[in-house]
Amino acid sequence: MNRVYNFAAGPSMLPEEALERAASEMLSYKGTGMSVMEMSHRSKGYIEIFDHTVSLLRELMGISDDYEVLLLQGGATGQFAAVPMNLLKTSADYVDSGNFAHGALVEAKKYGNINVVASSRDDNYTYIPEIDPDKLNKNADYFYITTNNTIFGTRYTSIPDTGDVPLVADMSSNILSEPMDVNKFGVIFAGAQKNIGPAGVTVVIVRKDLLGRANPNTPKVFDWTKMAENGSMLNTPTTYSIYMAGLCLEWLKKEGGVRVIHMRNQIKAKLLYDYLDESKLFKGTAHRDHRSIMNVTFRTDDPDTDAAFVKLATENGILNIKGHRLVGGMRASIYNAMSVEGVQKLISVMKQFEQERV
Amino acid sequence: MNRVYNFAAGPSMLPEEALERAASEMLSYKGTGMSVMEMSHRSKGYIEIFDHTVSLLRELMGISDDYEVLLLQGGATGQFAAVPMNLLKTSADYVDSGNFAHGALVEAKKYGNINVVASSRDDNYTYIPEIDPDKLNKNADYFYITTNNTIFGTRYTSIPDTGDVPLVADMSSNILSEPMDVNKFGVIFAGAQKNIGPAGVTVVIVRKDLLGRANPNTPKVFDWTKMAENGSMLNTPTTYSIYMAGLCLEWLKKEGGVRVIHMRNQIKAKLLYDYLDESKLFKGTAHRDHRSIMNVTFRTDDPDTDAAFVKLATENGILNIKGHRLVGGMRASIYNAMSVEGVQKLISVMKQFEQERV
Repeated sequence: MNRVYNFAAGPSMLPEEALERAASEMLSYKGTGMSVMEMSHRSKGYIEIFDHTVSLLRELMGISDDYEVLLLQGGATGQFAAVPMNLLKTSADYVDSGNFAHGALVEAKKYGNINVVASSRDDNYTYIPEIDPDKLNKNADYFYITTNNTIFGTRYTSIPDTGDVPLVADMSSNILSEPMDVNKFGVIFAGAQKNIGPAGVTVVIVRKDLLGRANPNTPKVFDWTKMAENGSMLNTPTTYSIYMAGLCLEWLKKEGGVRVIHMRNQIKAKLLYDYLDESKLFKGTAHRDHRSIMNVTFRTDDPDTDAAFVKLATENGILNIKGHRLVGGMRASIYNAMSVEGVQKLISVMKQFEQERV
Repeated sequence: MNRVYNFAAGPSMLPEEALERAASEMLSYKGTGMSVMEMSHRSKGYIEIFDHTVSLLRELMGISDDYEVLLLQGGATGQFAAVPMNLLKTSADYVDSGNFAHGALVEAKKYGNINVVASSRDDNYTYIPEIDPDKLNKNADYFYITTNNTIFGTRYTSIPDTGDVPLVADMSSNILSEPMDVNKFGVIFAGAQKNIGPAGVTVVIVRKDLLGRANPNTPKVFDWTKMAENGSMLNTPTTYSIYMAGLCLEWLKKEGGVRVIHMRNQIKAKLLYDYLDESKLFKGTAHRDHRSIMNVTFRTDDPDTDAAFVKLATENGILNIKGHRLVGGMRASIYNAMSVEGVQKLISVMKQFEQERV
């Protein structure tokens, strides 16, 4: 099977091992005579699969019993509404560090008073804005950040201390890529389609003391408390995507877990950034201090040259390297499932291209 | 591969052909070197898959250009909130014909004035209540029905005429099972996990003149208008479940489409109901005039005998035949993917059991 190096920003590359297992179990899961897709979500067999996925997530992220782990539908964008619906009474503080951070705060404004306490919007989100502790509202219902900005290739290198104000984080594009102390957060949520598994699952990790606050108008599928009371099965969850997430998490565990994958992720990112820093043709677009290790954004000085490089990369089995239209140039999304070899292959094609052009 | 007869109410049996194709394409879809799960939802290749699924649905159901077809997340239960959020200004009429109909009206009451114009709740939903035309509010924003009641095994045999009031239908458990004139409806919605494909996709078919009415507090992932403007891709949809739905719809088309599958569904239901009507041990629980052809509910006079039958059925490769706790007894969900042979096998085991007992 001739597989490509897929640098897509999400949905994105998955571990081959997980895909192979899924293919082999498609018509009959562990001799049951049925596909996981055909299993009732209320059946004993399926509940084992579901619980296995949740327990792997707890183990890999070190999530304590102080937190509920929910597997919901609607994506991170659904949580842009669910977060204020579940937590907002008076006001909340938001950091505007990228396109999804901005989308989250625009959505939240439908439900109450939102203060933007820091923003890098004026510089096209090339950096993570500094938070002025004096600007923080000690009575805010929550403080909201986006830990990694997929489109712009930036990330928080340290997690802000918000004291007693619960920290809510959209971790969609760097969850499970580096060790994170879950205890620093009130709520973590993430769309699955980058480091967890296929699209269609939204992970919500919520500290139990934050439950019970939902606005009565919250659609019940977005009500964390009701979902927690029903083990995420108030209605039928995305059963197969959850099974696939379990297979991907099993792979991650076998690879050595988050600490080991983090080392590999750092190696991948360093290889690419080191080359960008010495290249005469390509350059990174994110501020050096806030460079993401998941999404590496770069460009040449000329859009036609960028397009020519994307073409050459595609011919070499390097796919989906074109940057987002808000940044232009190129973006290499190097999530957990991308191998060091994939990044080396990308760099070798970049070098070849540069030698021909410079 | 030893496959079982799976009578689960949903998620439920899928066409074997669709599963085989999915397994064979798991690691490389049509020679692309990537799984459908790994494809960006914005990529040309994936958009083709998405459009193919929608166009099959349009063709099989005869959906005209007056309607948008949306593929969303959150399940039918999500739509219980989305329907009033998108349509309710003053009041709406609901028919309470089952557990999900009841859940829908309870959820809708969060968002405005809901009138229950007919109910069979007092008789444990064994029948479809008659609608008194004099009770209908000609100024209602919409009129809501559940075309098939999964738990109780009842269905509408004719669709009520609501005049100028848009008819909204939860068609989760009988969509694509029989020809339906879409033009009678303002909105049809359905969770996929019965007759469409795996869980995680919600089909919403909405007449275009009903767009643009959403309450400003609607989460944008539930806003039909915004989703229609973005081709259901305001955010990442459940990409793989949509691909699987396409494979299942391809199978349905090859089998001859809805008219042919309806004939087969009628044969399956008739075989089972005819046997129930002549049996001295088993009897149907739904009112004869409103019997579902998708969910056949039945029981003996004794819960222990029911349990013994479920055990014997399981030993014979007939799975998930136990009834819902609200009805007791047994339920055979005989969706499109269940073969006539599966139903014959069930009846033969019922006969064997009856001979031993009576």
